[in-house]
Amino acid sequence: MAENEKEKLTIVVFSGELDKAMAAFILATTGASMGMDVTMFFTFWGLNIIKKNEGGIKSKGLMRKMLNLLNRGGSKRLKLSRFNMLGLGTWMMKKLMKESNYPTIDEFINMAQAMGVKIVPCSTTCGIMGLEQDAFRDGVEGIVGAAYFLGEARESRVTLFI
Amino acid sequence: MAENEKEKLTIVVFSGELDKAMAAFILATTGASMGMDVTMFFTFWGLNIIKKNEGGIKSKGLMRKMLNLLNRGGSKRLKLSRFNMLGLGTWMMKKLMKESNYPTIDEFINMAQAMGVKIVPCSTTCGIMGLEQDAFRDGVEGIVGAAYFLGEARESRVTLFI
Amino acid sequence: MAENEKEKLTIVVFSGELDKAMAAFILATTGASMGMDVTMFFTFWGLNIIKKNEGGIKSKGLMRKMLNLLNRGGSKRLKLSRFNMLGLGTWMMKKLMKESNYPTIDEFINMAQAMGVKIVPCSTTCGIMGLEQDAFRDGVEGIVGAAYFLGEARESRVTLFI
Repeated sequence: MAENEKEKLTIVVFSGELDKAMAAFILATTGASMGMDVTMFFTFWGLNIIKKNEGGIKSKGLMRKMLNLLNRGGSKRLKLSRFNMLGLGTWMMKKLMKESNYPTIDEFINMAQAMGVKIVPCSTTCGIMGLEQDAFRDGVEGIVGAAYFLGEARESRVTLFI
Repeated sequence: MAENEKEKLTIVVFSGELDKAMAAFILATTGASMGMDVTMFFTFWGLNIIKKNEGGIKSKGLMRKMLNLLNRGGSKRLKLSRFNMLGLGTWMMKKLMKESNYPTIDEFINMAQAMGVKIVPCSTTCGIMGLEQDAFRDGVEGIVGAAYFLGEARESRVTLFI
Repeated sequence: MAENEKEKLTIVVFSGELDKAMAAFILATTGASMGMDVTMFFTFWGLNIIKKNEGGIKSKGLMRKMLNLLNRGGSKRLKLSRFNMLGLGTWMMKKLMKESNYPTIDEFINMAQAMGVKIVPCSTTCGIMGLEQDAFRDGVEGIVGAAYFLGEARESRVTLFI
């Protein structure tokens, strides 16, 4: 590594639950604040975290329409992986986060982007699920493949799969 | 690292769901196609992915027999971690993968092996679950311990736990 | 890395299930036995693994009290992530582990500590969940933040998120 290059942190975000999203963004923003060059690669259910909160997703074919209805996504619709309890647990966790002055996932995404964290959707899963760039919130990078991720990861000091 | 050595990618596959298996094999085959030396270390529920699809597993003791009946495995029996919906979601995902010309997990395993990806079962979990070499499909490497995995991982550019 | 420094292994333990805890401690103790310098960073549900088995947790506010009642924790209360079957699957797994002469999680924690593995709770999740140092068993290090984890991870040969 050249002297003037920043150390890299690369995170695959596979999971789409509120708690895993929190862990991913806490690590990404902490890394950025420590001067690391951070890339988050969103795939499978993780794509839900960076979908737009508003509006439906246009996708072709009945099955993809059904999948995107079930699996609607958006940072405000994430649930806990444990103790969701029909939404009560998730609501409690959000209250506790607010009380402790923690950002919401929505705020975390904006904060991460403002700190230069790159937010990248995975082309393979976008293809299978019928998602195009306009399904994602503003500021999300262009859709890229697994080779892009591995290219970043092999130059990273730390790579995590969440 | 010597100049002529290939960079290593090592993946622990702990989970046995269809979506996690897809993520693991997409990354493993992409890594191999980029010239990386790839090892996949299967443990716990991940062992289900590389079990034979045909025939039952012979194991000693009533509890191990029960466990292997419940936890039958084989690449064709994997389910989604979300939206399985009594099999409907899993069936839909398989259809979408086929429509997008993606390989099945069965094809992915054969492809990975043809590309030189090493597929290795973990001895600790094989011991607990009563699995022996003949529970696994052809081409799977001999059963090895956690020290083998860590030995590979400490020489790897990228190590993931899926 | 200086010649006389030990190679580092850093594990984030996010999950609180029996099977994931086993995987984490098998890797941590194997790493320590291979002469690696091992740190385990416990966060979210993973904190349950290192909570005391005895007594309740004192926390302020009704919601935190409820959360800590639901999410009681302690190494003896962990469940399998699959096939828990109202506790039957977990009981079976514990029997199989004992039969195969594997340590319990409780024994694994003591063993890891005796081998010099550092067991560290994450301050962010402790803050949200209202956990203080006295919620954790003896020998657990002081509560630290995500920056501490990333500091360890960037100096590690192997970093895993479990």
